[in-house]
Amino acid sequence: MLNPEVLEKLGSIVGKERVKTSKEDLLTYAYDAYVMEYLPEAVVFPKSTQEVSQIMKVASAYKIPVTPRGAGSGLGGGSLAKRGGIILCFTMMNRILEVNTANRYVVVEPGVVISELQKEVEKMNLFYPPDPGSANVATMGGAVQMNAGGMRGVKYGVTRDYLLGLEIVLPSGEAMNTGSLTAKDVTGYDLTRLICGSEGTLALVTKIIARLLPKPKARRTLQAIYNRIDDAGNTVARIIEAGIIPATLELMDKMIIKALEDFAKLGLPLDAEAVLLIDVDGDLETVEKQAALVADFCKKQGARDVRVSNSEKDNEQLWMARRGAFGAVARMRPTCVIEDATVPVSYLTAAIKKVIEISERNRVQIAVLAHAGDGNLHPLILCDQRDAEEMERVEKAMGEIVDYALSVGGTLSGEHGIGIAKAKYLPRQLSGTALEMMRAIKKTFDPLGILNPGSFLEYPA
Amino acid sequence: MLNPEVLEKLGSIVGKERVKTSKEDLLTYAYDAYVMEYLPEAVVFPKSTQEVSQIMKVASAYKIPVTPRGAGSGLGGGSLAKRGGIILCFTMMNRILEVNTANRYVVVEPGVVISELQKEVEKMNLFYPPDPGSANVATMGGAVQMNAGGMRGVKYGVTRDYLLGLEIVLPSGEAMNTGSLTAKDVTGYDLTRLICGSEGTLALVTKIIARLLPKPKARRTLQAIYNRIDDAGNTVARIIEAGIIPATLELMDKMIIKALEDFAKLGLPLDAEAVLLIDVDGDLETVEKQAALVADFCKKQGARDVRVSNSEKDNEQLWMARRGAFGAVARMRPTCVIEDATVPVSYLTAAIKKVIEISERNRVQIAVLAHAGDGNLHPLILCDQRDAEEMERVEKAMGEIVDYALSVGGTLSGEHGIGIAKAKYLPRQLSGTALEMMRAIKKTFDPLGILNPGSFLEYPA
Repeated sequence: MLNPEVLEKLGSIVGKERVKTSKEDLLTYAYDAYVMEYLPEAVVFPKSTQEVSQIMKVASAYKIPVTPRGAGSGLGGGSLAKRGGIILCFTMMNRILEVNTANRYVVVEPGVVISELQKEVEKMNLFYPPDPGSANVATMGGAVQMNAGGMRGVKYGVTRDYLLGLEIVLPSGEAMNTGSLTAKDVTGYDLTRLICGSEGTLALVTKIIARLLPKPKARRTLQAIYNRIDDAGNTVARIIEAGIIPATLELMDKMIIKALEDFAKLGLPLDAEAVLLIDVDGDLETVEKQAALVADFCKKQGARDVRVSNSEKDNEQLWMARRGAFGAVARMRPTCVIEDATVPVSYLTAAIKKVIEISERNRVQIAVLAHAGDGNLHPLILCDQRDAEEMERVEKAMGEIVDYALSVGGTLSGEHGIGIAKAKYLPRQLSGTALEMMRAIKKTFDPLGILNPGSFLEYPA
Repeated sequence: MLNPEVLEKLGSIVGKERVKTSKEDLLTYAYDAYVMEYLPEAVVFPKSTQEVSQIMKVASAYKIPVTPRGAGSGLGGGSLAKRGGIILCFTMMNRILEVNTANRYVVVEPGVVISELQKEVEKMNLFYPPDPGSANVATMGGAVQMNAGGMRGVKYGVTRDYLLGLEIVLPSGEAMNTGSLTAKDVTGYDLTRLICGSEGTLALVTKIIARLLPKPKARRTLQAIYNRIDDAGNTVARIIEAGIIPATLELMDKMIIKALEDFAKLGLPLDAEAVLLIDVDGDLETVEKQAALVADFCKKQGARDVRVSNSEKDNEQLWMARRGAFGAVARMRPTCVIEDATVPVSYLTAAIKKVIEISERNRVQIAVLAHAGDGNLHPLILCDQRDAEEMERVEKAMGEIVDYALSVGGTLSGEHGIGIAKAKYLPRQLSGTALEMMRAIKKTFDPLGILNPGSFLEYPA
C-alpha cells in the first residue's frame, strides 16, 4: 500500500476517481496476457502529458516504481508491477489528434486502440500497416513500447518503421519530443527508435506521430491446405525466393486447425497437417497476377486444396479464424505459453520440424502458429502451471526452441518482447558487453530505476 | 604528431605501411566534402575487426582522438579530425562477405562502396535501395554512421530501414554484435538504429548485415520541364496526395539547369524555372500505368514538356545529369555549402519560394536541388569563403532556411547529418533535455570522449 501522502498527491494531480486502490481494482491490473501476476499498489489513469509529468515527479521524489500499461495484452509480462508501486494505465489518453492526409501521418495519444486507428485512416483511403494479432484491443502506446509486429510484417515491417516522432516523459517527469514530421530526419541520435521496443523501461510515451501509406487498392486472400506440414513450409520458402512479397503469409498446424474447428466451425479438414493463409495486396492487376502465381506455388508444393477469395467479406472471415487461433488454442489446457523465436525464412521448415521433434521428445503439447513469411514462429505451449513436473519439461522445450533459433542466426523474440517471460534467455543471444551497454543506457534514462523495474534487464535480479 | 610509442604500437598492429604520417598523407585526409580542414596526426587503415579493436585499445590507453572515415564524401565535416589524433580509414575493409539470396540479406565490411554493393546484388536480381547522390564513392560504413538517404527515400526509405544487424567496436576496443539475421527482432534495445546516424561518435562499424529487396521488374524515368517553379512544386504535392509513390522525385531549379548545361550539354532549356526527374518502378503494368498518370499530373500542373523514357540507357543518362548537379554547381564559385533542411512535403512549394526570398533578400546565390518527394531540400549556397562579409550573409541565409523548416515541423537535416556544419543549429530543434540525453548516451559509449571528438554534440565546445 502506497504512503497516504503519495496517494493524496496523485489524487490532487488526476482527481481521486482516477487513482484506484481497491483490492478489486488492484487484482484486475495484476495480470496481463502472460501467466504471472503481481499486485500493484495503485492504478492511475492520466489524461494528459502534464499529468504524466507530474505523476513521475511524485514517483521520483518518493522512489516509487511506475509500470506503464495499455490494454495489458502483452505476452511477456512487460506491463506487470514486478516491484509493486503504480500501474500507469494509458487507456484514457485515447484521442486521435490529427490525421494529416497531405503528408500522410497521424498524431495519436498512446491509449488509441490499433484497429480503431486503422479504421479511422482507412476512411480517408490511408493505411496504417502494423497489424498485431491483438490489434482489436492493443494500444498504440503498447505497440511503440514493444515494437509490435504482426501479420503484415513480411511486406510492411513493424511499428518502428512507421514512427516519425514521439512525445515522451522521462522518469524525472521532464517531457520532450523526438523526431519530426518528416520521414527523413538525421538530427542527433535516433531516440525515437531507442524508445521503440524499450518495453517501458526508458520513458513513457505520451504522443505518437506515425507515418501512413496510401491504402492498397485491392487484396486477395488465399487459403491453402496441406497434408504435410513440410510442403507448407517449403511453399513459403519458394514464394519468398521467387521475389513475391505477400502482405501476409501465415501458417497454422493441425492442432490449431483442430482448435479452430472446435471453436468456430470453419470447415477445415481435421486430417490436414497445415494451412497457409496468404494475402496479396496492391494494384488490382498486380494482385490478380500474384494471387495466381501464389496459388500455383501452393499447388506445385503439394497443397491439396487452394481457395482464392476476392470478396472483402470472405477475406475477413478467413482472417477472423487466424485472429481467433490463440484464443481457440488457449481454451484447451489451463495454461498457454506462447513462444516467439524467429529464424531466417529459409530455415522455416527445419524450424517447424525441430519444434515438433522438441515437442515429442519432451512430451510437451505444442501447437505451431507462425508469421511464416518472416520466419516468426509462435509455438503455443499447452500445459498446466500447477504441474511442476510438466512445467520443467515445458521450460526445457522452450530453451531448446530458443537455442535452435539462435543457432541459425535468428532471435529469441521476433515481436513479443522480452518482458519477464524471456529474460532468462537474454544472455544466450546478447553478449555480456551488449547487456552492459543496455543497462548503462537504462541508467542514463532512469537513474533511480523507477520505470518498469524488475523487467527484462534486471530480471530476476 | 603522435607519441612515437603510440606510432610504434599502431605499426605493430597493422604494419607500418598502413600507418601514414607524412605531411602529404595527413593533408590528403585533412578534408572531406565540407568546407573546413583539420590535420590529423596519423591515418591508419585497418583490415579486420581485430585490428580495429587493438587500435582502439591503444587509443583508449593514450586517450588519443579517433575519427572514423570512409570515402570522405560526407557533407558536414563529420569525418574530420577536429581534435587531431587518428583518422581511422575503412577503405581497405571492403569485402562483400555474403550475399544470401534465400533470405535476401548481404553481409559487408564498412569500406564497400554503395554502388558496388548495388551492382553486385542486382546481378542476382536483388536490390539495395538506399541511393545517396554520392553512391559511386560513398561507403556502406559511412552510410550507416550517417543514416544516409538519397534519391529513393520517398518510396524506399533510408539506410536505417535496411539494417538487420551490425558488428561494432566500442571505444574501449570491445567488439560486439547488434541485431540478428531476421527483420523482426525485439531482443533488447535497438542498438543497431542507435548506432545508425550517430555519425561515428558512439562506436566503429566493422560489419553490416543489410536487408535486400527483390529487384523491381521495370522502371520508367520521366523528365518534366516547367516555366514556373511553383508548378513543379505543386506537381509533387499532387502526386503524393494521389497516393502514387514514385521511386524518386527530384527537383532542380534554373540555376542547376544552367550549371548542368554548361557542364554536360543535356539540351535543357535555359529559360525553364524547374525540372522534375521522376522514376516509377515495380511490375511492368503498374509502372506503365503510373508513368502515364504522373505524366498527366505534370501536364495538368503546367509542365511545358514531359518526356518518358523506357530505355535503361536513357534512364541512366537522365540520372547522370542529376548525379552531376552538385559538381556542376560547385564549379561556379570558390565555395559551395549545401543545406539539407527538410519539410513535410505539403510545404515544398512554400519552402522553395521561401528559399528564393531568403536568397534575394540576403543577396546570396542559392541553387535549389531537392529530393522533392520527401520534402528534402538541398539549397546549394554559392559563395567565397575568403569574403567575410559575404559569408556573414550566407550564415544568415542558412539560419533562416533552418528556421523555416523547423517552423513547419521539419528538420534541420534530412540526410546529411549534423557534423560540425550544422551543430550550431542543433539547439533550435532539440530541447536542452534532448541534448542532455544524447550527451549522456555518448558518455555511456565513450566515457573518455575519444571517438570523433569535437563533433556535433560538443561543437564548438
